Amino acid sequence: MSGSLYIVSAPSGAGKTSLVSKLIEQDTHIMVSVSSTTRPKRDGEEDGVNYHFLETETFLEKIEHGDFLEHAEVFGNFYGTSKSSVEAQLNAGKDVILEIDWQGAQQVRKLMPEATSIFILPPSLEELQRRLNNRGTDSAEVIEKRMNEAVSEMSHYDEYDYIVINYNFEKALEELHSIFKAGRLRREVQSKAHKNMIAGLLGE
Amino acid sequence: MSGSLYIVSAPSGAGKTSLVSKLIEQDTHIMVSVSSTTRPKRDGEEDGVNYHFLETETFLEKIEHGDFLEHAEVFGNFYGTSKSSVEAQLNAGKDVILEIDWQGAQQVRKLMPEATSIFILPPSLEELQRRLNNRGTDSAEVIEKRMNEAVSEMSHYDEYDYIVINYNFEKALEELHSIFKAGRLRREVQSKAHKNMIAGLLGE
Repeated sequence: MSGSLYIVSAPSGAGKTSLVSKLIEQDTHIMVSVSSTTRPKRDGEEDGVNYHFLETETFLEKIEHGDFLEHAEVFGNFYGTSKSSVEAQLNAGKDVILEIDWQGAQQVRKLMPEATSIFILPPSLEELQRRLNNRGTDSAEVIEKRMNEAVSEMSHYDEYDYIVINYNFEKALEELHSIFKAGRLRREVQSKAHKNMIAGLLGE
Repeated sequence: MSGSLYIVSAPSGAGKTSLVSKLIEQDTHIMVSVSSTTRPKRDGEEDGVNYHFLETETFLEKIEHGDFLEHAEVFGNFYGTSKSSVEAQLNAGKDVILEIDWQGAQQVRKLMPEATSIFILPPSLEELQRRLNNRGTDSAEVIEKRMNEAVSEMSHYDEYDYIVINYNFEKALEELHSIFKAGRLRREVQSKAHKNMIAGLLGE
């Protein structure tokens, strides 16, 4: 049996990370892909858990060999999703989530057009601002910058297959889960998973 | 807000009717389309509830005017799904189920390619035979005929978007429901349903 690939994107403040971590806690058939990065490991981070920590040279070689489903450079550090590690998880029958932004999503869709993509929206700009404010004691300027980035990310919502609106955490979680449950019932998935049973039904 | 169209097919004995009637009991956003027929009304049947009972002349006129999404003649009686009545239910925001066979499904897909189609399978031929046997005191011959019809219907399972296997009624019901729940989260549906909210998020 093989799993399916899911892309989950959202502006920061939409609740993506909490939703995804609760989802994989509830449903052990779903995993989150561990990204690779060249940025230094921080205290408490573990290689292979938070990230696969790579030397820049290794990362660049992997790009050259087409080993990434998507990658980006942010403030001089590289981040990316390793194709082989995602494929290993899919072959183990897991549904795999990539938590990436709209640019990463565009790259993945080109290489794996069968991926299902989900965009999580906050219920309103006011609520988003409130959630971004709650994060700490940042200046109005920093918060405005985050709001602008959020709106820019959200402007790509219409490139996604599914939209979940996070009005209410429990409801959004159940909705998110239903996409994965229904995904397992798709003909391509069921035909593979129940090949012998179906052949038996058809007297083959 | 507008609903979505679903086609549900199955061989007899797979449990389709019980699953669908439990589903619409649980979820009032889902309705079953009432078919039209020219066969005589039986005791206890109500016009507009069990079927729309039509004169043959009226039925033939409606075919001529393209008023049916699908229709068929069975033992000299006509059966069909009225396009206008389905559209009225969809416009009222309901998800509408057509309980039709693979031939009807093929006709509907041509006219409404956006319809989502679901095929319900029994867990095994043995179980199907047991269920068909349990229906009464039919002869081995009659049962064999039904089994052949069932296998013939099932041979079209791979024309459907989703496959639900009815091993266990409660599990199959939950699976069936998840397809409808996820269907409401599709970008096209959400964009329409939350048009103003999304415009607000994007500062439009």
